[in-house]
Amino acid sequence: MPLEIIILAAGQGTRMRSALPKVLHKVGSKSLLEHVHALAASLSPDQISIIYGHGGEQVPRTLARLDAVWAEQKQQLGTGHAVMQVADGIGDDATVLILYGDVPLLKKTTVEKLLPLVGPDSLGLLTVELDDPHGYGRIVRDETGRVLRIVEEKDANPQERAITEGNTGILALNGRRLKSWLGRLGTDNAQGEYYLTDVIALAVAEGCTVATAQPASMDEVLGVNNRQQLAHLERVFQAEQAEALLLAGATLRDPARFDLRGEIVALGRDVEIDVNVILEGRVKLGDRVKIGPNTLIRDCEIGDDVEIFANCVLEDAVVGRASRIGPYARLRPETRLAEEVHIGNFVEIKKSTIAQGSKANHLSYIGDTDMGAGVNIGAGTITCNYDGVNKHRTIIEDGVFVGSDSSLVAPVRIGKDATIGAGSVITKEAPQGQLTLTRAKQVTIAGWQRPTKARS
Amino acid sequence: MPLEIIILAAGQGTRMRSALPKVLHKVGSKSLLEHVHALAASLSPDQISIIYGHGGEQVPRTLARLDAVWAEQKQQLGTGHAVMQVADGIGDDATVLILYGDVPLLKKTTVEKLLPLVGPDSLGLLTVELDDPHGYGRIVRDETGRVLRIVEEKDANPQERAITEGNTGILALNGRRLKSWLGRLGTDNAQGEYYLTDVIALAVAEGCTVATAQPASMDEVLGVNNRQQLAHLERVFQAEQAEALLLAGATLRDPARFDLRGEIVALGRDVEIDVNVILEGRVKLGDRVKIGPNTLIRDCEIGDDVEIFANCVLEDAVVGRASRIGPYARLRPETRLAEEVHIGNFVEIKKSTIAQGSKANHLSYIGDTDMGAGVNIGAGTITCNYDGVNKHRTIIEDGVFVGSDSSLVAPVRIGKDATIGAGSVITKEAPQGQLTLTRAKQVTIAGWQRPTKARS
Amino acid sequence: MPLEIIILAAGQGTRMRSALPKVLHKVGSKSLLEHVHALAASLSPDQISIIYGHGGEQVPRTLARLDAVWAEQKQQLGTGHAVMQVADGIGDDATVLILYGDVPLLKKTTVEKLLPLVGPDSLGLLTVELDDPHGYGRIVRDETGRVLRIVEEKDANPQERAITEGNTGILALNGRRLKSWLGRLGTDNAQGEYYLTDVIALAVAEGCTVATAQPASMDEVLGVNNRQQLAHLERVFQAEQAEALLLAGATLRDPARFDLRGEIVALGRDVEIDVNVILEGRVKLGDRVKIGPNTLIRDCEIGDDVEIFANCVLEDAVVGRASRIGPYARLRPETRLAEEVHIGNFVEIKKSTIAQGSKANHLSYIGDTDMGAGVNIGAGTITCNYDGVNKHRTIIEDGVFVGSDSSLVAPVRIGKDATIGAGSVITKEAPQGQLTLTRAKQVTIAGWQRPTKARS
Repeated sequence: MPLEIIILAAGQGTRMRSALPKVLHKVGSKSLLEHVHALAASLSPDQISIIYGHGGEQVPRTLARLDAVWAEQKQQLGTGHAVMQVADGIGDDATVLILYGDVPLLKKTTVEKLLPLVGPDSLGLLTVELDDPHGYGRIVRDETGRVLRIVEEKDANPQERAITEGNTGILALNGRRLKSWLGRLGTDNAQGEYYLTDVIALAVAEGCTVATAQPASMDEVLGVNNRQQLAHLERVFQAEQAEALLLAGATLRDPARFDLRGEIVALGRDVEIDVNVILEGRVKLGDRVKIGPNTLIRDCEIGDDVEIFANCVLEDAVVGRASRIGPYARLRPETRLAEEVHIGNFVEIKKSTIAQGSKANHLSYIGDTDMGAGVNIGAGTITCNYDGVNKHRTIIEDGVFVGSDSSLVAPVRIGKDATIGAGSVITKEAPQGQLTLTRAKQVTIAGWQRPTKARS
Repeated sequence: MPLEIIILAAGQGTRMRSALPKVLHKVGSKSLLEHVHALAASLSPDQISIIYGHGGEQVPRTLARLDAVWAEQKQQLGTGHAVMQVADGIGDDATVLILYGDVPLLKKTTVEKLLPLVGPDSLGLLTVELDDPHGYGRIVRDETGRVLRIVEEKDANPQERAITEGNTGILALNGRRLKSWLGRLGTDNAQGEYYLTDVIALAVAEGCTVATAQPASMDEVLGVNNRQQLAHLERVFQAEQAEALLLAGATLRDPARFDLRGEIVALGRDVEIDVNVILEGRVKLGDRVKIGPNTLIRDCEIGDDVEIFANCVLEDAVVGRASRIGPYARLRPETRLAEEVHIGNFVEIKKSTIAQGSKANHLSYIGDTDMGAGVNIGAGTITCNYDGVNKHRTIIEDGVFVGSDSSLVAPVRIGKDATIGAGSVITKEAPQGQLTLTRAKQVTIAGWQRPTKARS
Repeated sequence: MPLEIIILAAGQGTRMRSALPKVLHKVGSKSLLEHVHALAASLSPDQISIIYGHGGEQVPRTLARLDAVWAEQKQQLGTGHAVMQVADGIGDDATVLILYGDVPLLKKTTVEKLLPLVGPDSLGLLTVELDDPHGYGRIVRDETGRVLRIVEEKDANPQERAITEGNTGILALNGRRLKSWLGRLGTDNAQGEYYLTDVIALAVAEGCTVATAQPASMDEVLGVNNRQQLAHLERVFQAEQAEALLLAGATLRDPARFDLRGEIVALGRDVEIDVNVILEGRVKLGDRVKIGPNTLIRDCEIGDDVEIFANCVLEDAVVGRASRIGPYARLRPETRLAEEVHIGNFVEIKKSTIAQGSKANHLSYIGDTDMGAGVNIGAGTITCNYDGVNKHRTIIEDGVFVGSDSSLVAPVRIGKDATIGAGSVITKEAPQGQLTLTRAKQVTIAGWQRPTKARS
């Protein structure tokens, strides 16, 4: 049977108090709608339709790359009305799965329990056992357990209110049946809207079976209507990711203080991650990588045995085996470190390659530089790569020793095994193997008096 | 009816193990007593009296600015004795509300349920339903639900111990009645003290009704006796603040890792706050402000579309629209940044104004400086503003380009569109539009040998 | 009676997915096995035996300093088989306590409830009341409460499965009895292994009493089989440490964001610790020390009234009374600061002594330096202590003022009350009381044109 998935994503989300449509808010690195679309895509359906709301053109524009049929619901006339926007395209024999663009954490395993419940004379409804069913439609069953109807909170009698099985709105059903029932939905209710939920009553009336499945956790079916709920699901999502990482064999000093906003595309053995680390984008971590506290890593490849100390920020960098980074090191995009490189405190590296065993341990800025192996960069070294309009490259060959507080004015080359005297401003090539420097004579001023306190 | 509020703040707080009187310990940015006083003041009472303890003069001295009558309880003879210290000043017709200086999170809405219960023949008592009533006085009621008495833990029989409604000590009652009952309190009890709680028995004996109200949450009536309880209430308070911020439309990546010790006096739309951010003092946040992780902001005004990256510390700074700050930027007091200013990593700004579009992106110290628009400050630039006794100002006019690793020795002016060569020490005015520098000649020393390893 | 303790530490820990044997993984600063050994040692036993597994030689090698008899279990034939490895050495009259190397948080108070249960005709078994007994052996008792046997999950009938009292495996018993029962253990079970638990049935069959004790908390008896469990126990352990610190009179802004991996060997009064602080090794904290957020302190001694601001990293440093450190200060090993020293942002200190009242507030590197009192180090100052092979010392005498952006090329001495001009490179002694500098003449280049944008 073909599978067609309809994602309802037209909700306005007023309580988000945001200029951004609700389904574009993010959990982890992906918007709510992207989470739902990813689930849908993982089921290999024949079609995914996304219903977005009037004024919500930002949604299809932002997510145009998603493989989906986009349909606008011009008037907000309810969930049933939303589905009607794509009713013409639904195949008679298709199994139709209804998902919600603001319910981001539904699991594939749960949907896989729901879909087999669908037949020509039966639909599958996802329900959930609730500690506090307040606000949910209740699932009314007969004494044999057969679902009779869903009663909304406000229409429920005291007995019905005591029911703790709630409707999630997520359902799967036969395409022909769905289209038939959609045509018979009415608006004779408090809101004057077409409720998709009413198909349950129509199904029961026609003798259709309403079979139910349940998610493993309540959090799978929680929707986002305000930022409190968004924050809650963010933490649930992060806890799930932390748990997966722990089970994969990484040590997290505090799973509640770990954020992954992207993907660990490779995980070595015996990785240790201290508290308050954030990983973003695509991150590769080699064997025995240690990441210190309060460190942010985005789109990086970290080699085996690398140790990253506290308070580092790494972005789009490759860090070679056994390198030591930080604390307070910032690796900016296009940093490529070979093996056993040491980058220390208050050092910024940008768009530079650094070969094996080189060190820049203190208060330096290395930008647009090609550095050889075995180089020692003294504290306070600055590559002057920018003349105000153009960027120029600095070449530092193998074995160079740059004395502290030197400026290398690019474009410039420091020859192999050259030494640069402390405090120099190097504007021309420094020849290999020799000492090059700029140095004014040290003088002591006779009779000089220290300034005295100004009257103010 | 006039409202008079008495705050009991004489507890010694031995278990805090502190040199500071207990009620001066802080939750958020305010002491426990300030929280209670703020609640009291919000009720617009005719008078607030605060009873402080013998030796606790530090309390009225520290909080002298509070609008209150201070009274010292010289001997610690119980809560009833504390109230006696101000009995003379209580009006006969007043409603008297008794609060506790170490119960900081009581809500106004709860007190507003309590006050209407007071009449000439009825008092209002705040009670609380407890999961574990251990240690609390239990509320004993008759079969009709009427309060009969409060029984203390140690005097309770097994049936009474099973009662889960506890006494909070917070009550409101008629002034004349209170004074009459205070006069009849005894010390015939284990501690030999005057218990305020005994007025309940006196009231019942006189045929007064004891009407009760309950707080929305247990945390409202928790007192602080040790630092564990202080820490618990700190987190409850922070969670409340985080919740309010979320509902106001800000995104918090982790509400449990957010601290507000002061007030967000203006909140723009779609503000995003990453993990582990601390806001102190009075903070204004414009529309679409993004605050990176591990950032501390105190008494700042942040304009629309400003992005603050990881690990920044901002204090008493104004940051103009669309500026980009950090990571690792420190803005110290009297920093005033116009629009589209970029302050980068390992940069400190102090007592300086920086006009539109200027940039100081790397390893610099800018202090006591007036900087124009469109200025580029090279990496490693230092304004030498201090001569050991006086601070002097540096003037950098529009369009200046300061080469890396330069020192600007104040007082000094860099003229409009001037360029400063890398590594210069500028001690005199640099004329506009021209290149100014200090530069020793680059030399290479023939035959120089690198040092060799010393024998040790 | 002699006490002999056997610690079973041979588990392979496959689910840790680690190259490290399971019991060497850490909670806080100590491995799981070290925690258990420390508990054992605190009971002053006559002997501690540790059974390690085949291929687990890394365990005795790593922990060789522990006072214990090591025995290898060459084949993994069950817990009973493990104990058999040391059976010969067990004294007939000894009380033998069986502990587990992967159960790190068991408390001494709990063991002290267990040991007195042991007699010639009775053994002591630690059991635990479980919310969810799934996976645990259940304690089957008769109607009088006498323990009859332990039934494993898979062998339990529905009635037995409903039992919520579980077996922890921790037990204490008479040496002669133990040896006798060990000799009668069989392998007639699903795994074909010798189960230590079977001694309970043998004991009951012989008419021995099985007396039970319970831990104060479930967490005491939790074992570690994967990194999720390791992370859980890490947080339990850290919460315990935070609680102890609070009760000792320190303020923690968030007990859930505090990590102690070592020991606070001295704690002053009214210490305040902000969020996300990590203490490692041995740390002394004086009175009124304040530690800002995101700060890491390892093996330091912090004097009274010291304030450490946000984002600092201190290691093996002594910080004198009333000093102010950070934000973003890094004190590296062998830093010794006297009283009222100020170390500011982006400043690194290494192997240096700094006397009273001296300041290095901005962007500096001070290494291998002896600094006197009342010194002012300007922003951007670098001590050039390394010539590529040797480290040399810098001497800065009392009252020196070092102008910004200066380099002091070691070995070098700056005389008392000397002033160094901004931007100088000092290679020779600077005489006391005078101004010494290196300075090229400031020149302005006539007709110079700014570079223009290169075509790319």
